[in-house]
Amino acid sequence: MAGRTGRRPGNPDTREAILGAARSVFADRGFDKASIRAIASVADVDPALVHHYFGTKDQLFLAAMEAPIDPAELLPDVLAGGVDGVGERMIRMILGVWDGQAGKAGVALLRSAVTNDWTARLFREFIATQVLRRAMTELEVDPGEAPLRSGLVASQIAGLIMMRYVIRLEPIASAPAESIVATMGPTLQRYLTGDLSGV
Amino acid sequence: MAGRTGRRPGNPDTREAILGAARSVFADRGFDKASIRAIASVADVDPALVHHYFGTKDQLFLAAMEAPIDPAELLPDVLAGGVDGVGERMIRMILGVWDGQAGKAGVALLRSAVTNDWTARLFREFIATQVLRRAMTELEVDPGEAPLRSGLVASQIAGLIMMRYVIRLEPIASAPAESIVATMGPTLQRYLTGDLSGV
Repeated sequence: MAGRTGRRPGNPDTREAILGAARSVFADRGFDKASIRAIASVADVDPALVHHYFGTKDQLFLAAMEAPIDPAELLPDVLAGGVDGVGERMIRMILGVWDGQAGKAGVALLRSAVTNDWTARLFREFIATQVLRRAMTELEVDPGEAPLRSGLVASQIAGLIMMRYVIRLEPIASAPAESIVATMGPTLQRYLTGDLSGV
Repeated sequence: MAGRTGRRPGNPDTREAILGAARSVFADRGFDKASIRAIASVADVDPALVHHYFGTKDQLFLAAMEAPIDPAELLPDVLAGGVDGVGERMIRMILGVWDGQAGKAGVALLRSAVTNDWTARLFREFIATQVLRRAMTELEVDPGEAPLRSGLVASQIAGLIMMRYVIRLEPIASAPAESIVATMGPTLQRYLTGDLSGV
């Protein structure tokens, strides 16, 4: 297979072949253990071509997920103020994204993740590596507690998204963003920074 | 159509016809405005036959939803102790149901609700009328605040179910039930009984 790498840079299907290979490898191995080299091998192209088309592994992952936003661009604003009020800023950012155009793509992604185990694995890797791990590192959360805190945060955010955008349960579906911020912000704040020593 | 009611009590399809009519009417009108008479009319049977086959409107709704459990049987234990510790008891009951056999049917129901608008409407009615409204009434929550408090509770529960049983994000997926109770119980407690006056 090595002898064939790089032979089809002009093939219009190359991009799709790389994305398909990326989905397969990311879902099989998880984000951290998936290498550009392995993805290139499955797609039967040169690794340099993968970088040329998609940039970094993070960027390739976003493209493979068809992610409507890049968390790396949104997280700095949320995390800039440190831990004080981070729960409220996080809810406000999420509503800003999902109340807008990206929300439609997000709902499609969530539907796919709920009905398809393979998409669920990709979705889980996306949440864990692209959103939560970055947030935990920036907020200097105790690494021993980070996985549980991450999971608690993810559960409240997932439930908000389900009820506001998918199931559309009132009054959550139509409530002003600031009502949601005021009621759920303290929940995220506690999950991120509260005392969990009894657990 | 009235002249034909009651003509097919022995038809083996009658049960399915009633369930299909019930799904359609409950989804169209919502639980409260759906009448046994309207459902019987759509199914083209006598209303007495609907009662004979399925009992009360609540029971017909559970059958139409293929609900694996009856909230009316589980809620009294959760609510019996009053508001003190009700958040923790609610999480413990949910995990007891979903960690068991009923959880598999629950995941199937949730998948259907997420991908099908019509099932989403039924699911929303189920949560609102069979679970949350009963809980709010028993706990004597201020009726003006009950809808928002209900929605907040539903969002945390939905997120827990998504992450533990559908997306299977660790450590939420494998955490001992009591860890989840200890971390999420206070969230439900605040949503049910905390001060929301700033909202």
